[in-house]
Amino acid sequence: MSYSKIAVLGAGSWGTALSMVLCSKGHEVNLWMRNEEQYKDMINTGKNNKYLPNVILPSNLNLHLELEKAVLDADAILISVSSQSVRGILKNIKPYLKGNEVIINVSKGLEKGTHLRISQVVCEELPDNPFVVLSGPSHAEEVSKNMPTTVVVASKDKSTAEFVQDLFITPSFRVYTNPDVIGVELGGSLKNVIAFGAGIADGLGFGDNARAALITRGISEITRLGKAMGASISTFAGLSGIGDLIVTCTSMHSRNRRAGILIGEGKGLDETLKEIGMVVEGITTTKVAYELAQQYNIEMPITSEIYSIIYSNNNAKDAVSNLMCRNRTHEIEEVVDSINTDW
Amino acid sequence: MSYSKIAVLGAGSWGTALSMVLCSKGHEVNLWMRNEEQYKDMINTGKNNKYLPNVILPSNLNLHLELEKAVLDADAILISVSSQSVRGILKNIKPYLKGNEVIINVSKGLEKGTHLRISQVVCEELPDNPFVVLSGPSHAEEVSKNMPTTVVVASKDKSTAEFVQDLFITPSFRVYTNPDVIGVELGGSLKNVIAFGAGIADGLGFGDNARAALITRGISEITRLGKAMGASISTFAGLSGIGDLIVTCTSMHSRNRRAGILIGEGKGLDETLKEIGMVVEGITTTKVAYELAQQYNIEMPITSEIYSIIYSNNNAKDAVSNLMCRNRTHEIEEVVDSINTDW
Repeated sequence: MSYSKIAVLGAGSWGTALSMVLCSKGHEVNLWMRNEEQYKDMINTGKNNKYLPNVILPSNLNLHLELEKAVLDADAILISVSSQSVRGILKNIKPYLKGNEVIINVSKGLEKGTHLRISQVVCEELPDNPFVVLSGPSHAEEVSKNMPTTVVVASKDKSTAEFVQDLFITPSFRVYTNPDVIGVELGGSLKNVIAFGAGIADGLGFGDNARAALITRGISEITRLGKAMGASISTFAGLSGIGDLIVTCTSMHSRNRRAGILIGEGKGLDETLKEIGMVVEGITTTKVAYELAQQYNIEMPITSEIYSIIYSNNNAKDAVSNLMCRNRTHEIEEVVDSINTDW
Repeated sequence: MSYSKIAVLGAGSWGTALSMVLCSKGHEVNLWMRNEEQYKDMINTGKNNKYLPNVILPSNLNLHLELEKAVLDADAILISVSSQSVRGILKNIKPYLKGNEVIINVSKGLEKGTHLRISQVVCEELPDNPFVVLSGPSHAEEVSKNMPTTVVVASKDKSTAEFVQDLFITPSFRVYTNPDVIGVELGGSLKNVIAFGAGIADGLGFGDNARAALITRGISEITRLGKAMGASISTFAGLSGIGDLIVTCTSMHSRNRRAGILIGEGKGLDETLKEIGMVVEGITTTKVAYELAQQYNIEMPITSEIYSIIYSNNNAKDAVSNLMCRNRTHEIEEVVDSINTDW
């Protein structure tokens, strides 16, 4: 067993929880954050009270406010900032890098405007560094408490994926590899749109039956888009696809779902975002997903309705009712690969 | 819009809720039950207090204790008894049938010993009658309250499927057709095994991450077996596959999940079944599924572990830990169709 030096950029709940897993394996971990107040509080209390309360940070975790010191001599750099901040962080660390650090992305989103996946953003900014995306059904709160969790690491390069698998794997944090970077990135990003929709349905007082239908149709439209964008269909049937979608749509840990619930209950968007108090990736991702659906000419009814709620101020109840209670008869169930009809 | 005469056999929660949907569409509905005490209580109170409390039965619902009267002149006969009782009921009604009544099955299970699906049992007992299976993410409690729900009806014959679709469809009860009878039957039956396992994980104190992983791997092993048995893979990605599995594994309405929770909390099997007080289909289905996996030589790790808990008295914690915390490294994520590796 060899130990590595890892910089974790972003001390939200997920960056903090993953730092704890890495510390538990004996790695040298530098956790960087932008906010001085948070830094001082974490130094003083030994906890991340804002994003991951009730958990005591490991004594061997190093906290940093200076990017240069955090990434110095790192073997790997884990990116856990909001997806719209990734490019800026990469630009900032570039002068300090050797070029062989493994970039591990755990942010789940797509870049606004460019529609790029994070691997593409990394490729533009740090073309020499090997890249891995880590994703799956993994609420930070549970990971920080050592509750059993499974994730996937995807990379174009098998040995890089296996390096990251070895960095993280513990008996309760299982890491699988997968070569399909596109599929893993899209599954992790687009699920937040569906989770926001599932939350709206919950907020409207719809039940478990409706939510299961939304999740099922949600992964179906994600898969359609993914296939058009070059992903492997089977990835969406795995942990980073339907697995992550299920946990995000059924757990109160998910801020995307919680934001949807508030909207469904009749709150406005500004009020909702204020109440959540953290970045709600699904809001931005909905716009990018909507534009991608048009670009690739893919039918994405859930994404379209969510888009109409957020960006056209449509009534949430009407939108979700449109999805659930369409007045068409003789509909054949349509899933990703159209059913091989024997009729 | 034409009205039909429909016999519903079995006044559990699901038979009762579906009777209410049919009554709301103006059909003549005869709801038959075996238990005289339940019959008297339903006549006296206008409610099904044992299986679907807090809901007032429609005034146009006819209650019956005599099978002959219930099925007389019926256009369709809906079977909603426990799956091991289906054959006996079919034998009992056979003398009263004309042979053209549409048989609609909503029982979710496989016949013990023979391993037959319900459509095969019906084909043996009533070879002339057209057959449809109705399945999907649909807790009876929510359906009885008109909460939005989607289901699938599958039949070898398209016009029979469309006849049943028309019988049931309302703005809040959406019915889709699907030609894949085998896939819809297997999805509905085998999900109870996984739900029982998800319940055990919950009872052991595992969290949302572990449950999502179990559901994801669960649909994967169900799909593998289904493919070997002649089902269409895409059906398992639909409402009657992953959709039904999700609702069953995440809702407290599911008695299979609740039974698992009690086992996970350390209760014995007899005590658990006594506390649930209704048929737990997953217990029988686990044995049939285990035997089918051996017959078709399919790896079904979750089913095997659940089988070892129920039938070999293995420790629940060890079994679920085996599933979640396997000590293998360099595992590639395996989903139904093995990932197209670019490595």
